[in-house]
Amino acid sequence: MRTGEPDRIRVAAGGAAGATSATSDVWIASGILSRAADFLRSPSGRYFLFASRSARDAVAPLRRALDGRLALDVEFDDSERGKTLEAAGRLAGAALAAGLRRDDAIVAAGGGVATDLVGFAAAIALRGVAWNAVPTTTAGMADAAIGGKTGVNLPIGKNLLGAFHPPEAILVDPDALAGLPDRDYRAGLVEACKAAWIADAELAARLDREADAVLAREAEPLRALLAGAIRVKAAIVASDPREAGRRQLLNFGHTLGHALEAAAGFGAMRHGEAVAWGIAAALEISVRRAGLAEDAARRVRAVLARFGPFPEPVRDASVLEPLIRRDKKTLSGGLSSVLLPAVGAARVDAGVPVEEWLDAAAIMSIS
Amino acid sequence: MRTGEPDRIRVAAGGAAGATSATSDVWIASGILSRAADFLRSPSGRYFLFASRSARDAVAPLRRALDGRLALDVEFDDSERGKTLEAAGRLAGAALAAGLRRDDAIVAAGGGVATDLVGFAAAIALRGVAWNAVPTTTAGMADAAIGGKTGVNLPIGKNLLGAFHPPEAILVDPDALAGLPDRDYRAGLVEACKAAWIADAELAARLDREADAVLAREAEPLRALLAGAIRVKAAIVASDPREAGRRQLLNFGHTLGHALEAAAGFGAMRHGEAVAWGIAAALEISVRRAGLAEDAARRVRAVLARFGPFPEPVRDASVLEPLIRRDKKTLSGGLSSVLLPAVGAARVDAGVPVEEWLDAAAIMSIS
Repeated sequence: MRTGEPDRIRVAAGGAAGATSATSDVWIASGILSRAADFLRSPSGRYFLFASRSARDAVAPLRRALDGRLALDVEFDDSERGKTLEAAGRLAGAALAAGLRRDDAIVAAGGGVATDLVGFAAAIALRGVAWNAVPTTTAGMADAAIGGKTGVNLPIGKNLLGAFHPPEAILVDPDALAGLPDRDYRAGLVEACKAAWIADAELAARLDREADAVLAREAEPLRALLAGAIRVKAAIVASDPREAGRRQLLNFGHTLGHALEAAAGFGAMRHGEAVAWGIAAALEISVRRAGLAEDAARRVRAVLARFGPFPEPVRDASVLEPLIRRDKKTLSGGLSSVLLPAVGAARVDAGVPVEEWLDAAAIMSIS
Repeated sequence: MRTGEPDRIRVAAGGAAGATSATSDVWIASGILSRAADFLRSPSGRYFLFASRSARDAVAPLRRALDGRLALDVEFDDSERGKTLEAAGRLAGAALAAGLRRDDAIVAAGGGVATDLVGFAAAIALRGVAWNAVPTTTAGMADAAIGGKTGVNLPIGKNLLGAFHPPEAILVDPDALAGLPDRDYRAGLVEACKAAWIADAELAARLDREADAVLAREAEPLRALLAGAIRVKAAIVASDPREAGRRQLLNFGHTLGHALEAAAGFGAMRHGEAVAWGIAAALEISVRRAGLAEDAARRVRAVLARFGPFPEPVRDASVLEPLIRRDKKTLSGGLSSVLLPAVGAARVDAGVPVEEWLDAAAIMSIS
């Protein structure tokens, strides 16, 4: 891919009117970071770079490509624990102190935390300046940087503060994953698999055949999975930019997943690992409630198993129940949940009783 | 007015698409706070109230009117020094801890700091929830709450972080001004006078006749000035919601005013007082550069004088120059400035040399 034209996927992400384009361009190609100046966008031509320290090697080609255009180059720690309002203010303040103007652009390089946090800093600096996302993890490439959501955590919950502020451009360079630890690599791709399962039967079938090649980090199977997952997310986000309806489909595996992640304790479980278990539970409920064929459920579980093993989750109903109920509107006891009648065709079921989720958590398996 | 229908002014403020209406309704009437439930908007019907401690008496009728609909009622200090990102996070966090959901609405009651700060908290909580503004100062009624700008200060400058997030409704109740100290009352109305001078010759003429009645807090002249100023701002904001061009007219008096406010030191000079001096300087330049008649300049100065006296400003060019240049794009030495060729008809002059502003600061007078 290094010499070819990159894949381009447009995401109509419905951000704030006026200040920045509501359309993000996702560019996908091995080696694209070394040609970043051709694909990133800044009205003034100047960039303010905030790069995750842990992505230093991955970001090196980006730094070289933007040589002479960087008004600021800051390295920061992008731990989930550091994804705070205070940190966003610090980053925005650093950009402003370095002379950020309304027609400049910010670049966020790193994992999902980096793009969420820096994108939010861009959303609030001078009431919103343009920004670009350079995800350096599988989770960031498949999910976090796509769709315009930016934000930070509060002690009482993740992503409770934020803004819809789509980046101008998103550069997805599979080469940037070279140094990513295997556990992060695998966990991040669970969100990409999820995209196939909810909305793209063909991509799901390809995944059945190519999961091992993806795990071996083979370039073409990996690129195809990422591009397919981004296309799914782009199509769903375009149909529901402000998350009023259809975008809920992206939460497949997340109803229980969020609870499992919280139950494990901050940082003990990768988000994608918790989602993998959440999908396993959703498969149980989908067979019972949505007519998912046992064989199809087995296929999905088999792929999940290849991306594992994942840490054993908390299954205790008394721990999980309050976490499932938290921040959700339970309508007459039922939870709005994403189920899978068939691979590639998820739908929302407005009334799954919390008890069914707790039962599924008790028996779910990945194998 | 207590028994009549309130004035309604629509402000098409061009906020974020989708999550909240981009149109604010301004409702103006004496006593309207006691009927607040009829005019505030919340998709769920629930309100989360954040009220300035200094506006407690003014807010009492609002509290009574919302009895039974308040999911939270928090009093806070709304000093300019407290208008920080941390404070916005604290307020948003309090609302979230009290169960704020996406279809709830926040109410900000207080001066311009309160509406800026709480409006920003509403903009970032859950990536944006609806909010309503209840200004209790002349500055808030005439200016701060209108137009969708929300934000907080950084140590390096005012309003550097923020969002365009227009309130659903703005309730302007002149009765709420009863307890406002005279200095704040007068300073806040400078922005209302400014609105007349830049865009409404008839309102300016009325102001010539009724300035003393307004200063005596007579109900009808005060209501007419506030409503007229809000109409001017609404028309300008509608023509330029994201502050790309025409909205700059609202900065009449602010080019030097901001510098004078900063030179005086945080809080020493009211914003409106600094703007009054800034207008006095702009009159000097307008006579020289824009053909403003001496007599017209005298009329404006005479009204300003009645709203004073204002604290003597810093006039030292060596202090003012860096403050004027800060955060402005100076194009070949010229500052984009708002001048007044005639009362009621301001225009932007893209190239006023900084030196002319410094000269004007040395000789400006209000009398």
